Parts: sequence; C-alpha cells; structure tokens
Amino acid sequence: MHKYALLPDWLRRYQRQWITGDLTAGLIVTVMLIPQSLAYAMLAGLPPEVGLYASVLPLIAYALLGTSMTLAVGPVAVASLMTASALAPLATAGTAEYITLAVLLALISGVLLFTAGPLRLGFLAYFLSHPVISGFISGSAVLIAIGQLKSLLGVALPSGSIIDTVAALATSYDKVNPVTAMIGGTAIAFLLSARLRLAPLLKALGMPASLAEMMTRLAPMAAVIGATLYVMQSGVDRTANVSIVGAVPSGLPALGLPALEWSQLSGLWLPALLISLVGFVESVSVAQSLALKRGQRIQPDRELLGIGAANIASAFSGGYPVTGGFARSVVNFSAGAHTPAAGVISALLMTMVIAGMTGWFHYLPHTVLAATIIVAVSSLIDVDTLKEAWRYDKADALSLLLTFSGVLLLGVEEGILLGVALSLAVLVWRSSHPHMAVVGRVPGTEHFRNVDRQQVETLPGLIALRIDESLYFANAHMLEEKVEALLRAQPQTRGVLLIMSAVNQLDATALGVLTDLEKNLASRSICLHFSEVKGPVLDRIRPTPLGQRMQDRTFLSTHQAFLAFSDMASLPNQPA
Amino acid sequence: MHKYALLPDWLRRYQRQWITGDLTAGLIVTVMLIPQSLAYAMLAGLPPEVGLYASVLPLIAYALLGTSMTLAVGPVAVASLMTASALAPLATAGTAEYITLAVLLALISGVLLFTAGPLRLGFLAYFLSHPVISGFISGSAVLIAIGQLKSLLGVALPSGSIIDTVAALATSYDKVNPVTAMIGGTAIAFLLSARLRLAPLLKALGMPASLAEMMTRLAPMAAVIGATLYVMQSGVDRTANVSIVGAVPSGLPALGLPALEWSQLSGLWLPALLISLVGFVESVSVAQSLALKRGQRIQPDRELLGIGAANIASAFSGGYPVTGGFARSVVNFSAGAHTPAAGVISALLMTMVIAGMTGWFHYLPHTVLAATIIVAVSSLIDVDTLKEAWRYDKADALSLLLTFSGVLLLGVEEGILLGVALSLAVLVWRSSHPHMAVVGRVPGTEHFRNVDRQQVETLPGLIALRIDESLYFANAHMLEEKVEALLRAQPQTRGVLLIMSAVNQLDATALGVLTDLEKNLASRSICLHFSEVKGPVLDRIRPTPLGQRMQDRTFLSTHQAFLAFSDMASLPNQPA
Repeated sequence: MHKYALLPDWLRRYQRQWITGDLTAGLIVTVMLIPQSLAYAMLAGLPPEVGLYASVLPLIAYALLGTSMTLAVGPVAVASLMTASALAPLATAGTAEYITLAVLLALISGVLLFTAGPLRLGFLAYFLSHPVISGFISGSAVLIAIGQLKSLLGVALPSGSIIDTVAALATSYDKVNPVTAMIGGTAIAFLLSARLRLAPLLKALGMPASLAEMMTRLAPMAAVIGATLYVMQSGVDRTANVSIVGAVPSGLPALGLPALEWSQLSGLWLPALLISLVGFVESVSVAQSLALKRGQRIQPDRELLGIGAANIASAFSGGYPVTGGFARSVVNFSAGAHTPAAGVISALLMTMVIAGMTGWFHYLPHTVLAATIIVAVSSLIDVDTLKEAWRYDKADALSLLLTFSGVLLLGVEEGILLGVALSLAVLVWRSSHPHMAVVGRVPGTEHFRNVDRQQVETLPGLIALRIDESLYFANAHMLEEKVEALLRAQPQTRGVLLIMSAVNQLDATALGVLTDLEKNLASRSICLHFSEVKGPVLDRIRPTPLGQRMQDRTFLSTHQAFLAFSDMASLPNQPA
Repeated sequence: MHKYALLPDWLRRYQRQWITGDLTAGLIVTVMLIPQSLAYAMLAGLPPEVGLYASVLPLIAYALLGTSMTLAVGPVAVASLMTASALAPLATAGTAEYITLAVLLALISGVLLFTAGPLRLGFLAYFLSHPVISGFISGSAVLIAIGQLKSLLGVALPSGSIIDTVAALATSYDKVNPVTAMIGGTAIAFLLSARLRLAPLLKALGMPASLAEMMTRLAPMAAVIGATLYVMQSGVDRTANVSIVGAVPSGLPALGLPALEWSQLSGLWLPALLISLVGFVESVSVAQSLALKRGQRIQPDRELLGIGAANIASAFSGGYPVTGGFARSVVNFSAGAHTPAAGVISALLMTMVIAGMTGWFHYLPHTVLAATIIVAVSSLIDVDTLKEAWRYDKADALSLLLTFSGVLLLGVEEGILLGVALSLAVLVWRSSHPHMAVVGRVPGTEHFRNVDRQQVETLPGLIALRIDESLYFANAHMLEEKVEALLRAQPQTRGVLLIMSAVNQLDATALGVLTDLEKNLASRSICLHFSEVKGPVLDRIRPTPLGQRMQDRTFLSTHQAFLAFSDMASLPNQPA
C-alpha cells in the first residue's frame, strides 16, 4: 500500500454496509446546506449562487485529501463574516469586482493552507488557547446577529461599528418594514421553538434522541419553503416591498481562476491568512472532537492539505472561503456518516440544485435567511466556557473577555489579531519564567525535594537548584538571574549544583548562558556542578568548551554530587 | 529607606573614592562620543547637532532611572540606521519635517518603553534568541558600512536596496571624488591600524592591557582633529569639492516637544516599536554582561524606565532615538566608571561642546565620519556566533543566517520582523511538542525510567506515561494524540497512568483536554489514573468535575499506582 496511493484510504477500504449511513447523512446535510449556503453568501455580501458554488467542489476536494470521516466542509458563518469584513474596504458588496476578490481570497487562503501542509505547520491548530477561540467565536456570533438585523427588519442601517449600527437602529425603528419584520420574526419564533421544543417533544413521543435532534435541523429548510410559498402567493415582494433573493443564475459555474494582480495581493494576504488560521483551527477542533468519539484520529498536517484543497477548489468554481462547519458536521456525524462519501453525496445533490432548481429561490425573502443566520449563530455564543474559565483560571477568563470585546469593538480581524497577540504574549511570558526549585536531601534517603515545601537537609556552602524545564533563549537568562539572587542571599556559597533532570533540550543561547555563568562563578571562586544531565543533552554539551570544563563536575545523580561536595567541603582549608 | 526615594540608589550611597574613576571614564567616553554623535546623526540622515543634542539629557535621564552602573547611553549605529530606514519613506533627509519626525520617533519609542516598565515587560529582553540578534546586528553592520561608501568616496549613489547600491557603485567608480576618497581611505587605514596594531604595541611597551585598549578608542577623535586641520589648511573643501560638515548651530537646544498628529502616529508606531525592542534588547545584553563581571545585576523592568526616560529626554531636547551602545559602554567600564555619575560628567562635557565649540566642526569632512562609522560597525560583524551555532545547533545557525539575509535583502525593519517571527515560530513549535516518555519500573526498585532507554518492567494492560512539561493550550492536544497513538499500538490496554511529576502548571485548555480524555477513555472502558501530581496543581484540579471523578484514581507515587493496578488486574474477572 503506497503512502501516496491515488485513492483515499477510506475509499479503498469502503464497506458496503456503510452506504446507508453515508447516503442518509449526505441527504440531511444537503437539506441544511441549501439555506445555509444562501444565507452565508448574503452574510458575506455575495450573491446567493456564490454560496451554492462553494458547496460542491470543496466537499469533493476535502473528501479526497482530508482525514476526518465526518467533517462537513462548505460556507460557514465566521468565515463569511471575515470575508465581508476583508472585502468591505476594497469593493462594493455584490459587484463583479467584489465577487472576484472573494474568489481570490479563497484562492490565497487555499494556497496558504495547502503549502503549510508539507511544512508540517499543523501544530498551529492548537496554538490559540481555548478561551481565546471561545471569545472570538462568541464575539463574531454577536457581530453577525446584529449585522443581520437590517435584513431581518427590512431597514437600511449603516455598515460600521457595532455601536453605530445599534445607535442607527434605535433612531430608525419607524423605518422598519412591518411585513418583512413580521415574516422574519415568525421565522425566528419557528426556528427557536423547533430547536427548544421540537426535540423534547419528539423524544417524549418515543423518538430516539439523535433522530429527534436531527429533525430540528430540518427546520431552516421548512422555514425557507414556507416563507417562499407565502411570498409567492401573497405578492408582498411587490405590494409591501419585502426584499427577496430574486433571479439566481442556473447552471454550473464555469471552472477557472480570475487573474491575480500583485496589487490585489497586498490587500488580501492578511485577511486570507486570518481566515485560514481561524478556519483551520475551527475545522480541526470540530473534526478532532468528533473523531475522538469513535476512537478515530485526524492528522492536522493532512487537514491543512484537505482544507487548503477545498478552498482552491472553491476558488476554481467561483466560490468563496470555506471551512469545516460545526453544526453541519455534528449533524453529519449523528446522521450516521461513516466516510467522506457523505460529503460527496451532498456535493452531487447540490450540483442538481444548481443545475436546475435555482429558480425555486426567486421568492425566498432575505429576512428568512437573516432569521436562519441569527438562530444559527445564537448557539455559538458560549457562556459556559467563560463560567468555567472564571472559576478555574481568571487569566484565561480575562483573555476570553478581551478577545470577545476586541471582536465587538474593534472588528473581527482586529479581534482575532488581538487573540493571536494574547496567545503569543502568554506563550512568551510562560516561556520566560522557567520553574526552578532549590532542593535538599530528604533525611536518610537519596531523594531531593524543594526546601520550601519539605523538611530537608542542605549542605552549607552549596546551592542545589533543580531546573524543571528545558533551557533555551527565552528562559535561560532567568537561570542566571535566579543563581545571582540566590548568591546574594547566601554570600558564603562555594558551589552551585544545577540538577538538570527536567532539561530535555538546551539551545545555543542557553549553552552561551551556562558558559558565561560558569566563567563568572569561577572568577568569584564559586564552583559550578551539574547532575542528572539527560543523555542526549550531555552528548551535545560534551564537545563544547563548557562540556570540557565541566567534565569532572558532572555527576550522574544528585546524591553523588552531594557526597562529592561533602568531601570537598571537608578538605584541610575548611575543617569539618 | 523608601523604595521611591527621589535620589537614585547609587547617588545616595556615593563614595568619595569613586569620583576618580567616574571622572576619567566620563572624559574618555566624551572623547568617543563627540565623533560618534556627529557620525551617527549623519547615518540617521540628520544634521550633526541632533546627534550632539541626543548626547546630553538622555545620559542624565538614564543615570536617574537605569540600573546599570556602566551602560553608556546615546546615539548608536543600529538605532540610527533604523531611524533612517523608518523616516526615508516619510520625508526628505535633513529637512525640518524629517527632523521633527525623528524627534517624534524618539518620543514614541520612549513612551512605549517607559509604559512597558510598570507592565513588567522586561522579560521581553530575552525573547529574541542570541543567534537572531547576532544575525540582525551583523546584517545591520554590513548594511551600514555599504551605505557609508557614498560619503567615504564622495560619490552620489541611489539610496535603495543593497544590490542597487553595489551595482551603482560598480558603474560609477569614475565619479569618485579622489581627494575625498583619499582622506577617507587614510582615515580608515589609521583607525584600523590603531585598533589592530596600537594596542599590542602599547602592551609590548609595558602599558596595562585595559589602558592600551582604551587608548585605541581615542583614535577616532584623533582622526577627526587631523582631518579637520588638514581641510582647514588645504582648502580642499573649495578646491576639490570635499564635502564638509559646515556650520553647526551653537548653543543649547530649546526644550520642548513638537506637536504629534494622529496621522503621523500611524507611520511611526511600528518603527518606534522595533527601535525600542532592538534598542532595549541590545542595552540589556550589554548592561547584563558588564554587570555580571562585577557581580552586580540589572533589572530589566527598571531598564525599560531608564531607556524609556532617556528617549523621552532625547525628544524633549531635539534629539533622536538613543540606547545603550556596546563600544562606549565597554570603554566606560574599562575606564573605571563606578556609577552613572560618569554619564552625568559626559553630559556636562557635551553641554560645553554644544554651548561653545560647534564651530570647530565646520571643516570636518564627511568622509572621516563615514570612515569612523565603517570601522566601528566592522567590529559588530560577528562570525564567531555563527561558527559556534553551526557546530552546536544547525537550526540556530539557520535562524542566524536567515535574519542576516533578511536584513541585507529586505531591509532593516523587515529583517528584525523576520527575526521576531523566527523566534516566535521556534517558541510556538517548541511549546507545541511537549516531551513525554513511556516508563517502566527499574526491577527491584521504586524508580521508573523511559522504556526506550532502559531495561524496565511494565504491567500488561497499563500504559504509564510521564509528562515532562507543564500542560497548557499549546501542547495539551499533543498529550491526547500521544495517548491515542499508544492505544492504537496496544489495543489491549485497560489503564492509562499519567505521571505528572513535571507538570508545574495546567491551564483551562489543558484541563478541558484532560476532562475530554478521561470521558473518552471511560467510554472505551479504559481507566485513567494520575500519579505524582504536584500540590498546587492538585489544589486547582480538585474542585473541578475532572478532579471529583479522579479522586480515587490519583496516587501519590507511581509505585503506589503500579501496586493498585496490579491488584485491579488480578481481580476475579481477569485471574493473574
């Protein structure tokens, strides 16, 4: 079996009995995907067909290269919001130029993700802390919901900061289109009651829990159909000026890529990078949590290829940035998807919709799409993580709140940049403060413990310092500072013993610091000793000048070092 | 003794016998500072007096707030290059607007550094790895030296990329001003021979090494005086068109700040941040290495205040960004400076120069200043660190070379950003790959060692995994992956024991990962156990849902966990 076999693993091992689950899941996900792809395209400021186009080839590309068996790829709320936010300063929503830029955004995102795969950058999926992600998603959800109020109420609101929007809304409530607001309000009430009441009801009627949950996922489609029929019958689009989707081009998109000019790249690379990062982190965390439930696993480096290919495929077919969505993936999983064949089936069904059924969306009112979005994102607002973080670690809770506020007050890109900066700051701060402890011998044993925590014996004139982390550029200087601080407190010190049991790595900067420390201590007649240096670290230090100087002062165990120092201390010049 | 006493510590404890050393050092540093402040102002694209202004108040401000006894603050080569690079796109060198922007750059840098002090961001001094700093300084030195060729040779060269400059030089060698080149060449030959020959000669004649080294530092002043006298006598500034400094305004600068407009801030904050970072890192590393030689210490958080105040003072007196310089600090140290009083003496001497002696610089030829710069920065090119890094750690050598090339090919700001990105990437990568080892019992003991390295006993059905680092958002998922990989390799596993002896901290993300892991394992009838959880970590886990579930499965020692698991394994349903 060749590692780069042409067919994906799941297809070569496909078992006949899986087809029922994959078919069912593919069908149900499609029923969710149709209203969502239309709604999220609207959220991104794009015509509805762009959302549909983004729901075909990306699913197939992911099926060929991704490693999750159940991740449902396609347009998602947060990436749509980020697309709108990235393109707003560059072009007018809905224009040909705007659509071209959206396609290029998907292309650049795809290329960035795809090239990150062979560079093995998959570990970046875990680099944003959970509280930062939670704050970002919750903030985006609030931003999205508020942004949809104009479509929901049929009122023109300025697109600006959230404060502007809310202020404008407060003063223009008299300009609300009552029929639009009525349809939208009804849709929200229907969708919410479906989610909150239908599942318990069905369960009470004896339906299995997972099936009942799934039924509620069909509610958006029902709302779309109901509202479309109502508008078609009543003619409120003409009589009451209710905004509708209108003509959606039918037929499959032409395949190909728009030309990318260097000047466009300068405005698009950063948003593309942020969309890639957020999309990748979201996909991997959804895929991971679903995979764990079945004892499967996903490989972040290969996910980069999968999601990268999905975005390139999206660009190639006139779509916009896609990623793995939370809600659809969970439904896909619960509906029994065994393999990405479910995604391929969704893609085929979507192709049929695009080829022949786009006319059906003509009378679909925008307010229902807004209602779908608002109800969908309301479940993304995550208060539990805040509560847990608040109880467990105030610093984590603070970074959640800061990211949340950043998204709301500064904007979605600025918010995620703030989150990245917070995560990096925590990382740098943590890395620069290595854990160290002065230790002594537990009486009568060969064990050594922290002098602050236990009753232990120390040797006069010897400081025994256990280093609890690897040493490298960000923390090595703190060792120097710690030793100096200890020496100031104990000026009679004649020896410093560094216990290196937890030092797995030692980079060139740390080697330099240790070299300087040894020389500096020697010039003050203080002798440096090492103990418990791990094999790989010792192998690297040995040929260096420091290693040669330390040859006779490196002990296998701390116990031996203590014995040797006791002997030295009892030499004639300092009688015991 | 109050912590915030008005007078600095060194002044309150000042001892009479220190005054000789401080006076000598202050005088010698001033003799170095005069040509350097003129030369570095030229390098920064500023008129000579700006360099002089930056050499007075900043020294006094640092003396009041800094913690190094010997750091010599003022204009330095790298910060001057960065100033030129930051302002080039914003204004024409030498214009009033350019000078105003340079003053604002010092102001913003100063405010950034000063406010970072109370935020305790001093640890950032160690956040760039030594190879990255070395590559950055070497690259800047080459860039500076090549940039000075036009002044040295008296030829007009385009200010652009290094390749443009070298190419232009190759085609315009016939436009070189022969007299200028002759003076410059002589100055370089004189300065180099002073450095390479004078000190050994003086030492051979019996002069103490440190005094001999110091004498060579006076060579630039000698070159300046010699060349000025030569030009004045020969009149080559008129007859051969040799470029000279010309009129330097005399008298002290008016104190005050130019108005800062928000529009200027957008172009200045990033360069100011980078200059602050580089200047701070350079200062702290110089100050640190000098302090260690005398068993003193510097406090990075207070250094932020000191260098920040120096920059604010520079802006306030019409100067430009300053920081602690390497060469002058070493001379200051060797000349016997005991306290920052040496800096105050330099400042007073510089005041006298500005007040009455600026006329003396009229006939000073630019080519000699260029020669001073080239010889000064040539000693910053650091090949030793590259050699050492290459031998010890290829990855470190690579990051040095990348930063070096980045500075040369992309520019000084891009170069340091690349260095920051490299350092962060290394940090994130390191952080995301925690060290873990499967362990077994050393026969007949209670010690547990890595199964791959030693002959140890394991229990069938139990995986004992020792985690060698703290767990947090960046690495917690790798634990999950490691456990899953081990379980795939040993599908008969009934228990997983996590040995937490090296886990000093556990953040909310890691707690979430452990909670999910425990549930997920339980659903597959695999039991999770903990051992050797540190006190502070246990205290935080205990009240959480995970802590409650793990109550009976948390063992003090790995040995106890092994005994308990042996008992469980021998229960009736699985006879031993």
